[in-house]
Amino acid sequence: MALENGSISINTENIFPIIKKWLYSEKDIFIRELVSNASDAISKLKKLASIGEAEIGEDNRYLIRVVVNKDENTIKIIDNGIGMTEDEVKKYINQIAFSGAKDFIEKYKDKTDEGQIIGHFGLGFYSAFMVAETVQIDTLSFQKGAKAVKWVSSEGTEYEMDESELDTRGTVITLHMAEDSLEFLDEYKMREILVKYFSFLPYELYLEDSAKKEEPVKDDADKENAEGEEKKEKEAPKPLNDISPLWLKAPKDCTDEEYKSFYTKVFHDFNEPLFWIHLNMDYPFNLKGILYFPKLKHEFETNEGQIKLYYNQVFVADNIKEVIPEFLMLLKGTIDCPDLPLNVSRSFLQNDGYVSKISSHITKKVADKLSALYENERENYNKYWDDINPFVKYGCLKEEKFFDRVKDIVIYKTTNDDYATLKDYLERNKEKHENKVFYITDEKQQAQYIKLFKDNEMEAIKLTTMIDSHFISFLETKESGVKFSRIDSDLSDSLKDTEAVSVDAAQKEGLEKLFKEVMEDDKLKVQVESLKASAVPGMILLSEQSRRMQEMSKMFGGADMSYMFPKEETLVLNSNNGLVQFILEAKDDEARKDDVKMICQQVHDLAMMGHKQLEPEAMTRFIERSSQIMLKLAGK
Amino acid sequence: MALENGSISINTENIFPIIKKWLYSEKDIFIRELVSNASDAISKLKKLASIGEAEIGEDNRYLIRVVVNKDENTIKIIDNGIGMTEDEVKKYINQIAFSGAKDFIEKYKDKTDEGQIIGHFGLGFYSAFMVAETVQIDTLSFQKGAKAVKWVSSEGTEYEMDESELDTRGTVITLHMAEDSLEFLDEYKMREILVKYFSFLPYELYLEDSAKKEEPVKDDADKENAEGEEKKEKEAPKPLNDISPLWLKAPKDCTDEEYKSFYTKVFHDFNEPLFWIHLNMDYPFNLKGILYFPKLKHEFETNEGQIKLYYNQVFVADNIKEVIPEFLMLLKGTIDCPDLPLNVSRSFLQNDGYVSKISSHITKKVADKLSALYENERENYNKYWDDINPFVKYGCLKEEKFFDRVKDIVIYKTTNDDYATLKDYLERNKEKHENKVFYITDEKQQAQYIKLFKDNEMEAIKLTTMIDSHFISFLETKESGVKFSRIDSDLSDSLKDTEAVSVDAAQKEGLEKLFKEVMEDDKLKVQVESLKASAVPGMILLSEQSRRMQEMSKMFGGADMSYMFPKEETLVLNSNNGLVQFILEAKDDEARKDDVKMICQQVHDLAMMGHKQLEPEAMTRFIERSSQIMLKLAGK
Repeated sequence: MALENGSISINTENIFPIIKKWLYSEKDIFIRELVSNASDAISKLKKLASIGEAEIGEDNRYLIRVVVNKDENTIKIIDNGIGMTEDEVKKYINQIAFSGAKDFIEKYKDKTDEGQIIGHFGLGFYSAFMVAETVQIDTLSFQKGAKAVKWVSSEGTEYEMDESELDTRGTVITLHMAEDSLEFLDEYKMREILVKYFSFLPYELYLEDSAKKEEPVKDDADKENAEGEEKKEKEAPKPLNDISPLWLKAPKDCTDEEYKSFYTKVFHDFNEPLFWIHLNMDYPFNLKGILYFPKLKHEFETNEGQIKLYYNQVFVADNIKEVIPEFLMLLKGTIDCPDLPLNVSRSFLQNDGYVSKISSHITKKVADKLSALYENERENYNKYWDDINPFVKYGCLKEEKFFDRVKDIVIYKTTNDDYATLKDYLERNKEKHENKVFYITDEKQQAQYIKLFKDNEMEAIKLTTMIDSHFISFLETKESGVKFSRIDSDLSDSLKDTEAVSVDAAQKEGLEKLFKEVMEDDKLKVQVESLKASAVPGMILLSEQSRRMQEMSKMFGGADMSYMFPKEETLVLNSNNGLVQFILEAKDDEARKDDVKMICQQVHDLAMMGHKQLEPEAMTRFIERSSQIMLKLAGK
Repeated sequence: MALENGSISINTENIFPIIKKWLYSEKDIFIRELVSNASDAISKLKKLASIGEAEIGEDNRYLIRVVVNKDENTIKIIDNGIGMTEDEVKKYINQIAFSGAKDFIEKYKDKTDEGQIIGHFGLGFYSAFMVAETVQIDTLSFQKGAKAVKWVSSEGTEYEMDESELDTRGTVITLHMAEDSLEFLDEYKMREILVKYFSFLPYELYLEDSAKKEEPVKDDADKENAEGEEKKEKEAPKPLNDISPLWLKAPKDCTDEEYKSFYTKVFHDFNEPLFWIHLNMDYPFNLKGILYFPKLKHEFETNEGQIKLYYNQVFVADNIKEVIPEFLMLLKGTIDCPDLPLNVSRSFLQNDGYVSKISSHITKKVADKLSALYENERENYNKYWDDINPFVKYGCLKEEKFFDRVKDIVIYKTTNDDYATLKDYLERNKEKHENKVFYITDEKQQAQYIKLFKDNEMEAIKLTTMIDSHFISFLETKESGVKFSRIDSDLSDSLKDTEAVSVDAAQKEGLEKLFKEVMEDDKLKVQVESLKASAVPGMILLSEQSRRMQEMSKMFGGADMSYMFPKEETLVLNSNNGLVQFILEAKDDEARKDDVKMICQQVHDLAMMGHKQLEPEAMTRFIERSSQIMLKLAGK
C-alpha cells in the first residue's frame, strides 16, 4: 500500500444511538439539560443587554416555564431568552457537539466574564431523544427583524426546518414523549425533578400542568395589568426556585436567622445547626457555599451528612467525595463551584489536582472556623464540643494537615465538667502526676473511681466516644512522653495515705493467701495499700496495656487472642478500712471463720462491682450471700 | 424561509476533545479499553477458527502482552488475535463509533453466540488519546496473504497509514505517552491496574518491563522448545490472570477447597467463609457468580461486604447497588453478567427493568440457599445463625418478598442454647404462656431473670443484635396476635407459687408504704407476690411498652421525650422469701427500725442491680451500706 493521509471521521448514525441510550445513566437528565439550556439562553441575552448589544423592554421579566400536557403527551420547555436565528439553529442544533455556549463565551470573553453559562459540550440538547419521539424547536431571536424558526426531528438524525408561528422572543422546545417515557408527564414527578436540580436556578422557574387549564405565567408586567383589577386578587403563582441562594450573598450581609432558615429549608432538618462556615472566594478558584455543623442525634449518625454540590446554581450531586474530604461528610451544606471540571454526564468529576486543591481549601476553612470559635467564643466552643468532637478527632486521624491546624484547640471534658486542652490538663496536674492523663470511658461504670478522684481533688478527662481509643493511641505517638491511663488502671500516689499505720509484709502475705483461698482463685493478685478514703474496703485495678491489647484484639476480630493478653486485674485492699482491719484481726479466729469468709467474698465482689458488671453466677452468689448476711443480722 | 430538510451532522473536531477529556472519569480507563480490544481480537479469531473460517497452528497459544518502556516513554499492548486488514483499519479505526465488535457479532450471529466479546460502542480505542501524544497501530490480519498495516495519529483527528514491518499475526498498539501521563510507565502502577480489571481475563495476560531486558513471553511453543534445555530450567513467567475463574465452572465440578481458596485469593480474607451460593444461569439472562457469606468479626461490620461485578470476565465496579439488593451488601463475591446494560464509561448502569430482574433473581437464590441449608443441614444452619441473623432480619425488613421466602426458617437461640423457629417456640410453650414470646437482650444484665426462668423450666429467646428491636415490632405486625415481652417486663403465672401462704391486703399496703418511705420515693411502685423461688427477695419489672417507647424516642434523637414515657418500673417483693418475711414481722418494732430500714434498702438495691446498673450515687450508698451491715455483723 502507498502512504496515505486522512481525517478520522464520525457519523451521526453511529454516535447518535450512543448519545441517546448510553451516555447518561438516568433518563431524567433530559430535564436538567433542556432547562439548563433555557437558563443559558436568558443569561446570554442578559449579558448582551448589559453591554448594550440587545434591547429588552423595561417590564421584561426573565422566566422559564415547563409545561406538561397529559392530553397531548407533550412537555414544553419555554424560555424568553436570546432565541436563535435560522443560521444559529443550523450551526448549534444541526451540528452535534458544537456548543453555542462555548461559542458565546469565546466571542464575548473580553467584554464580560463567563458568568452563569452552564453549557459546555453541545451534547445536552440531544438527550431529549432519550425520551421523546419527536422534538420540535420554535425559536425567535432577540435580533431586530428576526424571523421565527421551527425545527422538527423524529429520530435525531434527520431534521425539517420551516417558518414558525412563534411571536415572542425566546425558545420553545416541545417534546412529544415516547411510550416508555410517559411517566415524565406526571406533574408530581416533574416537580420532584425540577426541585432536585433547579431549586436555586438564577431565573424564575414555573411548572404548569396544561391539562389543568391553569393561567400560564406571563412574562410581561404590562399584559398582566391590562387584565384588570379582578385578576389581581388571585394570588400570583410562585416560582419553584429561589433565584438568589444565600450562598451568593456576602457573608457580612447574612443574618443568623437567614442561615438557620436556609438550613431548615434545604435539609428539612428542624434541629438548629450548631454553627456554619460561609465559603466565599473568587480566587484562585470560584467557590461559594455554606457548610453547617448539624447537631448530632447519636453517635452512629456520624456519616449521615449531606453536602449538595452545585454548578452555577444547578444541582450536580450529593456528597462528592473528590471535593469534600471524607471526614467532613457529616456536615450538611451547599457548595457552588463553577470551576469544577465535570465530565459529560455531569455526574463524575475528573480526578485532577484542581479538585484536590478545592478539597484542601475546604479543610483549611473548617479548621479556621474552629480556631476562631475557640479564640473568640470559647463558651460556645465548649458547648458544641460534645457534638463536634468525634468529627474533629476523626479528621485528625485522617488528615495530618487538619491535625496540625487544630491540635492545640482539641479540648477535653473533665470529671469536674469543665473543658481543658491537653496542655492545660497536664500543666495543672503536673504535681500530682507528670505527663500522665487519667481518663474515664464510662461515667456510670467507673463512678466509684471518679468519686475517689473527686474526694482527693484529682481530675480525669472523659473519653466516651468510640473513636477515642484510636485517638489517644494516635496522640501518644504525636505528643511524645504523654501517657493516657484509664482511671481504674493505676493508683496515683495522691490517693495514698502516707501517714497511716502501715501493714507489715507478713500481714500482707496473710491477706493475699486468705483471699486466694476464699475466692478459690490461685491467680488472684492482691495488693495492700492504705488509702485516704477509709470508707473503701477494696478496689480493682486493671493494667492499661493489657486492657488495650484485649480491646484491640476484639476489635480486629478473628481468632480469640485473649489468652495472649491475660487480664491483669489486681485487688487492692485498703488497710485503712474497718472491714479489712477486722479481717486482719479475725482471720485466724476459728469461731469467726464463716463470717470472715463471707466478708472477704463481699469485699472482693463489691470491689469488682465498682469496676465492671459481675458475671451472672458471681452476681447470683453475691445476692444470695447478701441475703444470708442480712438474715444473720436479722437473727434468722 | 423555505421548508428545508437535512441531516444532523457531527464533526470529529468537536466530538474528539470530549472523548479525550470528558467522557471517562479516570485516566486508567485507556488500559481497560485497549486490553479489552486485544481480548476481543483473540475471541474473534477463536470463533472463526471454531467454525472453520480461520486456520491457526496447533501450537498456537493466545496471549496478550502489555510492555512498558520507561526509556522510550512507550506502552505497547500486543495481542495475537484476528488482526486487521487495510480496509478494516479504515472502517473501524478511521470512523469513530463504528464498532468492529458489533459488526462481528452481527455477521456471525447465526453461527455462534455472542460469547466473550467485550466491545460495544467503538469508542474505547480513542481513550488512548487521553494519555498518549502519538498512537501507532501495527496490525497483521489472520487472512492468507494479508499485508501488515501501520496507522499513526497524533491528535486523533488526522492519521497516516502505511505498510508495517509487523511479521506476526495480531495487533500492536504503541502509545507514546504524553508528559502528564508518564505515571503509567511505572511497572507497579500498571500491574495494579491490570490486576484490578483483568484478574480473570479469558486469555493469558503478561506485563513486561522492557527497560528490565526481560525475555518477552513467546506465543509459539515450538520457538520455546527450540531454545534448548538450558532455557527450560528458568521458570516460565506466569500470567497475571486466572483465565478460567471458578464461577464459570459447573457447580457440581467445584470442590469446597476450590471455593475457599478462590475466596481467600480474591478477597484476601483468611477467615473461611461460612457458605456460598454459586449462581449459574443462562436463561432468561446470563448470570454467573459466587456469593460468599463471610464470618462477621463484629456487628458493626454489617455493611462492609464487597461484591465485584464483571462483564465478560472484565472488572466493572464494586458494590453496584442497582444489581445487588442493599441488604446483601455484606456478602462478598464475584458476579459476571454479560447481559448488563452498561453505559459508555462502563461505570454506571442504566436503571432499567432488566437490572431489577437480576437483583430479584439474586435475592431469590439467597433465600433458596438458606432454605436448603435449613432443610438439609440444620445443624450447620444453626451454627451459622449467629453470623447471618442480622443480615436475614435486615433483609426481611427491607424486602417483603425476601421475608415471605424466609419467614418460616428464621430461628431463635433460646436460653437453653438450642434453636427454635417462632412456631416451635410458641407451640412448646403454649401452656405456660400463649402467643407470648419472652426474650432477653443482654445475657449478663438479665442473668437473674434467666436463672429464675431456668429454675422454673421456662425458656426465652435471645435477641441481642441491634436490629432485633425493629425486627420484633415488624413481626408483631406480620404474625397477628403474637406479642414479644422482654424477660423483665412481666411475671408469668408459672413463676408464682399458688400454694404459698398468701399475704393480706393490709400487709401488702404496709410493705408498699414502708418501701416508699425508706427509698424516699413517693412514686415507687410495689407489688407483693409469692414466687416459687424463695431465695429471691425482690425483683424489678419494667413495662414492655413504655421501655420500647423510650428506646424509640432515644433512637430518633431530637428533644428528650422521656417525660412522655415515664419509667414503669415495679418492685416485686417475694412474700415467700425470709428477708421479706422478717421485714413484715419487724417493721413496727422500734428497736429494729435501723436494721429493717437497711434491709429494705438492700432488698430494693439488689433487685435493681439484677435489673440494670445502679446509678453512681446509688452504687456508692449500696457499697457503704453493705460495709455497715458487715461491720455490724463483725460486731464493730
